[in-house]
Amino acid sequence: MEKAISVVGGDLRIVKLVEMLIADGYTVYTYGLEYSEDLLKLEGVEMCPTLKDAVTDSRAVVGPIPLSSDRKNLSMPFSHVKLSLEEFIECLDGKTLIAGNITEPIRNILDSKSVVYIDLLKREEFSVLNTISTAEGTIQIAMEETQRTVHGRNVLIMGFGRIGKVLSKMLSGIGAKVYCEARKDEDLAWIKAYGYEPIHLNDLDKNLSKFDIIINTIPFQILDNKRLDLLKKDIVIIDLASNPGGVDRKSAKEKNLKLIWALSLPGKVAPVTSAEFIKETIYHALKEMH
Amino acid sequence: MEKAISVVGGDLRIVKLVEMLIADGYTVYTYGLEYSEDLLKLEGVEMCPTLKDAVTDSRAVVGPIPLSSDRKNLSMPFSHVKLSLEEFIECLDGKTLIAGNITEPIRNILDSKSVVYIDLLKREEFSVLNTISTAEGTIQIAMEETQRTVHGRNVLIMGFGRIGKVLSKMLSGIGAKVYCEARKDEDLAWIKAYGYEPIHLNDLDKNLSKFDIIINTIPFQILDNKRLDLLKKDIVIIDLASNPGGVDRKSAKEKNLKLIWALSLPGKVAPVTSAEFIKETIYHALKEMH
Amino acid sequence: MEKAISVVGGDLRIVKLVEMLIADGYTVYTYGLEYSEDLLKLEGVEMCPTLKDAVTDSRAVVGPIPLSSDRKNLSMPFSHVKLSLEEFIECLDGKTLIAGNITEPIRNILDSKSVVYIDLLKREEFSVLNTISTAEGTIQIAMEETQRTVHGRNVLIMGFGRIGKVLSKMLSGIGAKVYCEARKDEDLAWIKAYGYEPIHLNDLDKNLSKFDIIINTIPFQILDNKRLDLLKKDIVIIDLASNPGGVDRKSAKEKNLKLIWALSLPGKVAPVTSAEFIKETIYHALKEMH
Amino acid sequence: MEKAISVVGGDLRIVKLVEMLIADGYTVYTYGLEYSEDLLKLEGVEMCPTLKDAVTDSRAVVGPIPLSSDRKNLSMPFSHVKLSLEEFIECLDGKTLIAGNITEPIRNILDSKSVVYIDLLKREEFSVLNTISTAEGTIQIAMEETQRTVHGRNVLIMGFGRIGKVLSKMLSGIGAKVYCEARKDEDLAWIKAYGYEPIHLNDLDKNLSKFDIIINTIPFQILDNKRLDLLKKDIVIIDLASNPGGVDRKSAKEKNLKLIWALSLPGKVAPVTSAEFIKETIYHALKEMH
Repeated sequence: MEKAISVVGGDLRIVKLVEMLIADGYTVYTYGLEYSEDLLKLEGVEMCPTLKDAVTDSRAVVGPIPLSSDRKNLSMPFSHVKLSLEEFIECLDGKTLIAGNITEPIRNILDSKSVVYIDLLKREEFSVLNTISTAEGTIQIAMEETQRTVHGRNVLIMGFGRIGKVLSKMLSGIGAKVYCEARKDEDLAWIKAYGYEPIHLNDLDKNLSKFDIIINTIPFQILDNKRLDLLKKDIVIIDLASNPGGVDRKSAKEKNLKLIWALSLPGKVAPVTSAEFIKETIYHALKEMH
Repeated sequence: MEKAISVVGGDLRIVKLVEMLIADGYTVYTYGLEYSEDLLKLEGVEMCPTLKDAVTDSRAVVGPIPLSSDRKNLSMPFSHVKLSLEEFIECLDGKTLIAGNITEPIRNILDSKSVVYIDLLKREEFSVLNTISTAEGTIQIAMEETQRTVHGRNVLIMGFGRIGKVLSKMLSGIGAKVYCEARKDEDLAWIKAYGYEPIHLNDLDKNLSKFDIIINTIPFQILDNKRLDLLKKDIVIIDLASNPGGVDRKSAKEKNLKLIWALSLPGKVAPVTSAEFIKETIYHALKEMH
Repeated sequence: MEKAISVVGGDLRIVKLVEMLIADGYTVYTYGLEYSEDLLKLEGVEMCPTLKDAVTDSRAVVGPIPLSSDRKNLSMPFSHVKLSLEEFIECLDGKTLIAGNITEPIRNILDSKSVVYIDLLKREEFSVLNTISTAEGTIQIAMEETQRTVHGRNVLIMGFGRIGKVLSKMLSGIGAKVYCEARKDEDLAWIKAYGYEPIHLNDLDKNLSKFDIIINTIPFQILDNKRLDLLKKDIVIIDLASNPGGVDRKSAKEKNLKLIWALSLPGKVAPVTSAEFIKETIYHALKEMH
Repeated sequence: MEKAISVVGGDLRIVKLVEMLIADGYTVYTYGLEYSEDLLKLEGVEMCPTLKDAVTDSRAVVGPIPLSSDRKNLSMPFSHVKLSLEEFIECLDGKTLIAGNITEPIRNILDSKSVVYIDLLKREEFSVLNTISTAEGTIQIAMEETQRTVHGRNVLIMGFGRIGKVLSKMLSGIGAKVYCEARKDEDLAWIKAYGYEPIHLNDLDKNLSKFDIIINTIPFQILDNKRLDLLKKDIVIIDLASNPGGVDRKSAKEKNLKLIWALSLPGKVAPVTSAEFIKETIYHALKEMH
């Protein structure tokens, strides 16, 4: 049972993960990935006909990230089968489940069955690594959506959390003039220490007219109807914040402003790198358990 | 006649240039741009029915970059008219022609007619500015064509000329590990001074297997059939060198290697920025003449 | 009483702070700074003969950073007077004390007398700003203490906290090859995201022989006698950790290794910048109180 | 005679070079370095009693950089002997001389005696490598001579030649705000491409008041009496240009401005790195001759 792992469901990142696990010497049992052409061509993978077959011979079971997108069934875009969360959990007795966004009701069931679980999206390490892909994907979008170079542009990043930190470094690295907006003195001190132009939220309005590109990372509507009026007409706004985002979408549309709402970039722009990050995090998490 | 300028033919960059010249207070007479929707909507532009009308009231005439792509007619993608080089030159008596790639036969005719001319593509300033767009466009391609982040990748730049210098800075700025290949000790010293990993052409072969992305800027076939065998199977090669390029294309195809031949990036990825650079260069060139 | 502030004791940074406060329009009353030649030449400062005179007309009193270095008297290097903490606190009724490192016994007395106090060294903002000076001072030391350029050297930073983050950016910015040691997966992820070479503590020993310069920020003895044997003979070690530091000093001396223990750099290498940071932090702290 | 080399005279860099040549397996014969304590302790070096002994058994003779500082005798700071250039050249028949700044009269004599010579200071490679040390030494001076951090300062670099290019990258890398002054459109384009703030010489005067630090690399007096009046009173000027430099020294002194004239930095701030660069250049030069 050493060096065996089960993989159930998941998207392209999980497919790439399977390839890497095999390259690292694991025996990998899969279920719910039967439509992946990459896997069909891959030597050494054990694609199992039933869930039970797939999980029998390993202790660790990797599930989708996120585990479910409808709160009922497992995320299995590479399968025609529907697998309910209940049915899935049934098979996990005594095993370790590794997946993303394991919600509280599910956690309660897992606890009651003594299934150990690791939520990748709760591991700071994984979040940090993912900012690399998110930042790079954002820059790619900025390049694609403008008729000018990003180099030389005035770019505002709203929020100086994980993504803000990595994104500002990269943008500055390709020659953009980077401004970062924050509210907390501590964050503004970091922005200064890293060498970007700090802008306190209170001073945002009087600066808004100078930006060519704005990237929002704050899950709170800062760019409201009134502030949108202060922007350049040819602004490009990229909103990375999850629902409801940081921009008044309706107003932006009415004002004919270019707004791109970009979510889940890591899996889209760099699935292989994402798979590497998943793999690293899994290895570290499993190591901690021993 | 102060602050008047004529623009004849040209691509999207030239259209954007017209917009900028008008914004700067010029009266702009155009010919051969009648299919540009941007211009049709633009207030203040004088779209003339004949070439003669277009050039009568200004001393400086801006032509396409390059002037011609078939050595016979002017490059006029936004027009259904064909305008021969001869006919065009006929109208330039006593004027200053500003265009790109003015070939020797044309230069001889211009000299004989005492037409002053400025070849933008021969101005070092313009070439340097264009490297900004070329470098950024190359990075955009690298991001689009790989399933991994460029961050963290081993990237080889072959040649340390203008493009190599700007590209290495940007790539390093987004977190790639940058290696630069050169032959001359002087170039290798620069690579070291700028903090990239220098690789002498003589040491290229033994290093080739480690690169994830290779960007060629040398107009000479370095990546021949034999060297292509030394590359990673999932390499991405971007060739920026003009015909015949630096890669054995046929072999690359046979070996199923991903090769992108990317020419004329500035106009494609950042036409507005290109127009700005054209404008700046024209202003400087005209200033020098006074 | 608007725009009046008292300053009692303190070092060169506090002297510079007085200059800046006056330039900002404050009336500044000082005590315990009578030996500062800078202040003697400065117009507009109110140097008071007694502590009482100095604190009467303002609500905010700025004290030394740290408040005391012997736990008994105020830090007053620019005075021949000794002022005990008790005597000082006596005069603070109803005022706001701003100083550094206000110890618990002092805090208890202040609380009992309803004196509001702000410990600058406990404000994250101030700590972050100070890392700028610390990082730059460290680089200055590295340049002075080596016969080689820092550019091109293999530099190890031990610990990826505040100082590690800013220092790695600057060192990389002048062309050093930066390695960062950490224990936590999260920190190692940040190191990777920022583009430096991560080294897990477990892998430290096998890497130690390649470094030219080591900078320690961890207040725990990592570089013990055994590890010191693994270093290059001409290593330069800069220890930024406060007592007892991160290096076995005795062993380092016996082995004839170059070790610089560098504490309190901000005040030494950049007193004016430090004063600016003190000023900014005071302004923000006072604003919060209203 | 394979792997033998002679070293005659020279400063600390040459002493370090001898150490490196021996470490590389060369037999090294020296003359005129007898006062160097480093060499006295070094095993394997052949310190010869006469010049003739020192040059008999090798083909390549390394001399001082520069060869002479008084145009009469060899530069031999580590010797009490005076050795005239004539006497030295006498012994070089059939040999290759490698030294710095070989003046025309000397070159003529060498030619007449068929001595091959390599002037290191004429090799672009060596000049480029030396900019690394010069740039870093300049930053060290800037750190030492100011009471503020270089981070966050407005720094003007006058001239965008070799030193300007490397210095701007490093200064920007530690967080300075970098402005570069130039005259040529081409240089200004490079400044923009690299992401610094370009300032045309014509616009210099109106910008001068904003700089905290000015570094001059132009061997022509730009900062004349009139311009010095436009500077901040606490400016720090570092002049890297050789005699007469780029600053009106007399006026600067009268106006009490801080001016540091910093020449020959590589040998002073990083003698070992300089020796490495000398070694590399010698190896490349000798290789070319075969």
